[in-house]
Amino acid sequence: MAGAQRPMHIAVINPNTTASMTAKIGAAARAVAAPGVHITATQSLHGPVSIEGFVDDALAVPGLLLALSNLEHLGQTNRALQPVSPLNEGDHGPVDAYVIACFDDTGLDACRCLTDAPVIGIGQAAFHAAALLGGRFSVVTTLSRSVQVIEHNLQRYGLAAACVRVHASDVPVLALEDPASDARARINATIAQAIAQDDCRAIVLGCAGMADLALDLSVHHGVPVIDGVAAAVGMAQTLVGLGQRVPRAGAYAAPNAKALTGIMAGFSSVLSQSS
Amino acid sequence: MAGAQRPMHIAVINPNTTASMTAKIGAAARAVAAPGVHITATQSLHGPVSIEGFVDDALAVPGLLLALSNLEHLGQTNRALQPVSPLNEGDHGPVDAYVIACFDDTGLDACRCLTDAPVIGIGQAAFHAAALLGGRFSVVTTLSRSVQVIEHNLQRYGLAAACVRVHASDVPVLALEDPASDARARINATIAQAIAQDDCRAIVLGCAGMADLALDLSVHHGVPVIDGVAAAVGMAQTLVGLGQRVPRAGAYAAPNAKALTGIMAGFSSVLSQSS
Amino acid sequence: MAGAQRPMHIAVINPNTTASMTAKIGAAARAVAAPGVHITATQSLHGPVSIEGFVDDALAVPGLLLALSNLEHLGQTNRALQPVSPLNEGDHGPVDAYVIACFDDTGLDACRCLTDAPVIGIGQAAFHAAALLGGRFSVVTTLSRSVQVIEHNLQRYGLAAACVRVHASDVPVLALEDPASDARARINATIAQAIAQDDCRAIVLGCAGMADLALDLSVHHGVPVIDGVAAAVGMAQTLVGLGQRVPRAGAYAAPNAKALTGIMAGFSSVLSQSS
Amino acid sequence: MAGAQRPMHIAVINPNTTASMTAKIGAAARAVAAPGVHITATQSLHGPVSIEGFVDDALAVPGLLLALSNLEHLGQTNRALQPVSPLNEGDHGPVDAYVIACFDDTGLDACRCLTDAPVIGIGQAAFHAAALLGGRFSVVTTLSRSVQVIEHNLQRYGLAAACVRVHASDVPVLALEDPASDARARINATIAQAIAQDDCRAIVLGCAGMADLALDLSVHHGVPVIDGVAAAVGMAQTLVGLGQRVPRAGAYAAPNAKALTGIMAGFSSVLSQSS
Amino acid sequence: MAGAQRPMHIAVINPNTTASMTAKIGAAARAVAAPGVHITATQSLHGPVSIEGFVDDALAVPGLLLALSNLEHLGQTNRALQPVSPLNEGDHGPVDAYVIACFDDTGLDACRCLTDAPVIGIGQAAFHAAALLGGRFSVVTTLSRSVQVIEHNLQRYGLAAACVRVHASDVPVLALEDPASDARARINATIAQAIAQDDCRAIVLGCAGMADLALDLSVHHGVPVIDGVAAAVGMAQTLVGLGQRVPRAGAYAAPNAKALTGIMAGFSSVLSQSS
Amino acid sequence: MAGAQRPMHIAVINPNTTASMTAKIGAAARAVAAPGVHITATQSLHGPVSIEGFVDDALAVPGLLLALSNLEHLGQTNRALQPVSPLNEGDHGPVDAYVIACFDDTGLDACRCLTDAPVIGIGQAAFHAAALLGGRFSVVTTLSRSVQVIEHNLQRYGLAAACVRVHASDVPVLALEDPASDARARINATIAQAIAQDDCRAIVLGCAGMADLALDLSVHHGVPVIDGVAAAVGMAQTLVGLGQRVPRAGAYAAPNAKALTGIMAGFSSVLSQSS
Repeated sequence: MAGAQRPMHIAVINPNTTASMTAKIGAAARAVAAPGVHITATQSLHGPVSIEGFVDDALAVPGLLLALSNLEHLGQTNRALQPVSPLNEGDHGPVDAYVIACFDDTGLDACRCLTDAPVIGIGQAAFHAAALLGGRFSVVTTLSRSVQVIEHNLQRYGLAAACVRVHASDVPVLALEDPASDARARINATIAQAIAQDDCRAIVLGCAGMADLALDLSVHHGVPVIDGVAAAVGMAQTLVGLGQRVPRAGAYAAPNAKALTGIMAGFSSVLSQSS
Repeated sequence: MAGAQRPMHIAVINPNTTASMTAKIGAAARAVAAPGVHITATQSLHGPVSIEGFVDDALAVPGLLLALSNLEHLGQTNRALQPVSPLNEGDHGPVDAYVIACFDDTGLDACRCLTDAPVIGIGQAAFHAAALLGGRFSVVTTLSRSVQVIEHNLQRYGLAAACVRVHASDVPVLALEDPASDARARINATIAQAIAQDDCRAIVLGCAGMADLALDLSVHHGVPVIDGVAAAVGMAQTLVGLGQRVPRAGAYAAPNAKALTGIMAGFSSVLSQSS
Repeated sequence: MAGAQRPMHIAVINPNTTASMTAKIGAAARAVAAPGVHITATQSLHGPVSIEGFVDDALAVPGLLLALSNLEHLGQTNRALQPVSPLNEGDHGPVDAYVIACFDDTGLDACRCLTDAPVIGIGQAAFHAAALLGGRFSVVTTLSRSVQVIEHNLQRYGLAAACVRVHASDVPVLALEDPASDARARINATIAQAIAQDDCRAIVLGCAGMADLALDLSVHHGVPVIDGVAAAVGMAQTLVGLGQRVPRAGAYAAPNAKALTGIMAGFSSVLSQSS
Repeated sequence: MAGAQRPMHIAVINPNTTASMTAKIGAAARAVAAPGVHITATQSLHGPVSIEGFVDDALAVPGLLLALSNLEHLGQTNRALQPVSPLNEGDHGPVDAYVIACFDDTGLDACRCLTDAPVIGIGQAAFHAAALLGGRFSVVTTLSRSVQVIEHNLQRYGLAAACVRVHASDVPVLALEDPASDARARINATIAQAIAQDDCRAIVLGCAGMADLALDLSVHHGVPVIDGVAAAVGMAQTLVGLGQRVPRAGAYAAPNAKALTGIMAGFSSVLSQSS
Repeated sequence: MAGAQRPMHIAVINPNTTASMTAKIGAAARAVAAPGVHITATQSLHGPVSIEGFVDDALAVPGLLLALSNLEHLGQTNRALQPVSPLNEGDHGPVDAYVIACFDDTGLDACRCLTDAPVIGIGQAAFHAAALLGGRFSVVTTLSRSVQVIEHNLQRYGLAAACVRVHASDVPVLALEDPASDARARINATIAQAIAQDDCRAIVLGCAGMADLALDLSVHHGVPVIDGVAAAVGMAQTLVGLGQRVPRAGAYAAPNAKALTGIMAGFSSVLSQSS
Repeated sequence: MAGAQRPMHIAVINPNTTASMTAKIGAAARAVAAPGVHITATQSLHGPVSIEGFVDDALAVPGLLLALSNLEHLGQTNRALQPVSPLNEGDHGPVDAYVIACFDDTGLDACRCLTDAPVIGIGQAAFHAAALLGGRFSVVTTLSRSVQVIEHNLQRYGLAAACVRVHASDVPVLALEDPASDARARINATIAQAIAQDDCRAIVLGCAGMADLALDLSVHHGVPVIDGVAAAVGMAQTLVGLGQRVPRAGAYAAPNAKALTGIMAGFSSVLSQSS
């Protein structure tokens, strides 16, 4: 395994700012990590508390880039705007791979410009994992406004034909954090409907906040139910195990240093650290 | 024409923060606007001075959303963070259509969630205009890092097969603002190369900063050379002339009100105004 | 604006031979034309009274080519077979752009070989306008025999994925000219059905004869309803505003002069004028 | 074989009006016809002497439809405008299948609306034959203006990915009728170039006028060289052997009876006979 | 016709080992063969008695390759493991074309590496024949496990868009050999359902064992019903009539001689004869 | 991790019969396996010594199915034809996932019908790993006859657009087992050429026999070079870590029990064990 002299270090970044969701994501990641792999679960500190649709996506990315940029420069003097926190409990050496823990794969391409380490989105990872099972899959996500974002990503990744349909369960993201909500029942019902209608071989859960539900749902419905966080950790381990670093070039070249004005000047370390 | 009782009002928003470029874009827009159409040319006040690649795109969108949101709420009390400036010289009634003046069509989907007016990106407009001429076109853009972004957009819009190739001229965006640069010569040479190799029927200029060059280049090279700003103004006039307003729903539903943390709290009016 | 020394001149050609439909199309075109734009609405004099399916399309094109060729050579001595008529009320200088006013985009490619001016089909224009609104649209057309023609065009233009479905309303084209018919009720019902089933963001009206219905239908159904004639006039203005002329070459080269035999000898001026 | 009580009757229609080409096409068809199959080789009497590009295509189709319509109504009293000629040497019973002998598959869809017999274009037949050999093929055609027409057809038929490239040999169609021209040498050279560059498994000849060259070229170049006329006769025999008649419906419904005006009134029997 | 000095010789190979099915396939092939064409109907002697799904496909191919290899080397001394049998009643000279009589087109690519003669699968032939009728078709096959195999083949051949849907009738292949089964009734019902739902212009029968049903079903349902065996014989005649031999190269190069171990050593003549 | 009570067990099956290659593959798999994962590296005993093209693929699959079937039924009494050997050094409990170690993904779909465990091909795994790095990749394989097989697989998986080109290095598979061959130099040169021409972000090695070269080549060329064996082990661990078992149904239903005749009767345990 590459870098055998120190433990593999995978950083899972929640691009929304809800700490309970980061904790859940971290637990899901650690549950599947191979022995000896260190998981840093962290989050954006600057942006929306949940990501539901195009506007939230757009408002979440700067904070995500800053979080990744700070992890990339751990131990350097120019870490910016990122307090030491329980979420980020100490340095474990350079990050070997990053996981973006939002099913929209928010900011994925921009993140790749800030590091030579592989960066994987949990939507992307879940789609590829489902494709590896053979046959076709369906997705069960939260709100209907996310359906088109997911369909668009499937198209980009070449996996649209492998997906029968993207179903919305009409569960807001933060309802998944509320034990009193009917979120779980709705997701259950939507999965049952997908299985009945879609002739699909697997179900993909379309939100990082569903990470704790996958195994139970899989047993309950008798078909593979795939959580993107776990899939992405596995994929990240795979790429690191292959020893892969990805030189930044072309579309993924490091951003040019340039002025940031107004409020966004607060993110200037993203550009100044990148070269 | 819809709204005959007052002049049609089209807002062209430059999502970078360079005022000279905004002025050039405004001039290009006014040069093609039909008689009686008012053009507001404005810009983001919060973000990078030019947009070159994925990271700049991501850092530009919040400021773009704020600029659009403020225009959308002209005359309302909650306009935020947008000083009165020469760029935004007075109110001309509600905006009938928006043009996003970055060839990457930065933030296009998110903008559509903030208004019922049509929103058009200049890349999109240029591609559709070229497609309407029949045959296939090529694109000449600035840096190679933008090529993949443009190819990706062509794919999304269904127009990838109509484009022979996207060429980079290796001209940084802000060199287009500098009369002493060799930007024009490089663009000229790249167009000549595209015509020689691509068997294309038209050339699309791949940067808002090239808006002043199109007519001269068209005459010089003897083929249609399309500027996206002019194309987008024409398309916007078309849609407004058709009387179109687009109710926000589905993927384009208005964003849910929710907390924004950290630096991004500065953009909270984007969410609070949207409903 | 190109050609500022004289008014822009757009010719809208109805490829069927029904004068009442030409008048309606002309009115729709003039209603959306920008101030100072002259619209010539004319029609074929040689062909079927309506265009419904492949055979009518084929029988309509020669007359369409002759009408366009005569407009192209206004003032020249070899204008052929085209009487002076109220439809063609005088010369307004060379035509700057042509609109083919049949939703099948009948003869579009052949027309492009006869002129350096842009030529736009109303089907094409409506599809591109709908695509510019974002999201997906549905089409409501006349007879079921036209569905495949429209689907085929969507495929060619790259916009098939942007269209949810093409619906037939079972209204013959000429019933749209008959105030006593139930055409309007059927179209209304078909639009309602499309909105209910298709999760579409806009409706495209699939016949030039529906040009007068779009605004009312848009208000009634609360979604954008797009008429191709108005869309095409806007797109034509856009391309002329960009100063575009399109040199004939490749697939769109001017036809070689050659003998036409039998009945078709009557169209020989199409070939003799083209070089 | 279906209709064993009388010989199978296949009509090959040349949609241009050059008799020497019709004779060559007829000979090519008869050379591959199975024993007992009668080939009627006929041509349009109304249209261009050769078909090169979109305008010629459009001007050829009415005459093609009339020729097919007359064959379809052999023995009926309303045969129109089609003199008895050596090309059409007597009645051999109803036509069992039609072949359109222009590589552009000119008028193919319209022809299908006039008969329940299968109608096959020679371009289509050649593409399908080449696809049945496995691997990918290239096309060698006449003028560069035909390349886009052929590419468009390949797209429609689903066979674009099976074709490496369409090459133009810059040979005008009627040069193929002139023994003194250098047509053969140019075609030879273009085929050699295609084989050298394209890694293709077969060559398709892209013009009916090349029908007499295929076997020699195949021997000379050592790869399959496919003539569309021969391919189409074989395919037509296949479909007739399967007993297929195709009820006209949907997009291929018989045209509605309606008025034809002006010059085109000369083709009114096409519509009046169709129901 | 190529090889006029001796009758054309087409070999139809049933890749399963059920003799009654081979006899039925042979009868279907002879019923449509042109006068003077000799049909050899033979079968694999080594493999499953019917082919239903991926595993049966895989276990059938070696026997198919051996059968084809032996036919290819008729009269040579190294014919292996293929007893003289009533199915293979004597030598009729070299085989001019091969038909693989399983609707999955089992082993088609591998077969092409063993001969310069064209090799056609009956699924492939039926799809192409249906495509030549114009419009779209549906497929009626046996078990649901075959649906994905057929869809995959349609994709490879470029004809997926031409097929509305692949229907399973839940009839096991060998039930088609059993007069007492309800196979015919189920197929009838599935065709009726396909016609009612699919707006299709033709039905393709998705199993070689249905070869005797096509004409009756066509008459009964009033739409073309296509049997792949008959279609493939027609297509094979077409290619042989064109004089086509296909030099083995690239992906279809003759296999390299190499050792086969274990049970598979029994098929070593496939490799030793190939060079 | 699923099945924490016993070590995860991944079986890597080499579908050719060359033991040295199996040993190399096993070493590559173990080098990347996570701590505590047991790798069984085994091979087919019945088939060709290397797999180069369609015929070898076909002759390899029965032996592969038997090897997988025997592993699936470890400890059962009906294990057939598979001697205890050093390659299969003892039972480690049921297999949790299978890897097919041939870059053609030979027999992948058939294998999935024989087990509820995930089955991953090394070609598939390498393509998905390269896709997860972002950008586009190129493949460097052995003989040119394999290029089309690989291109076809990329198409099926939806990843054709992510691959710039598949290059052949003209190295026979078994040359990779011969230290005296120039295999390594040729692969090196082909990779250098791919990097120079393709603007690719990663290289995929297109043969299991190259598994020991990837890391060195990656360092030497400065871009990610991906070995499919290592990628597949990582992906398999990912799917097992997700707890996935895949019920056999639809296209992947367990094969029906049925007679196997002739030589293939030797594989009858594949069918008898499957239900």
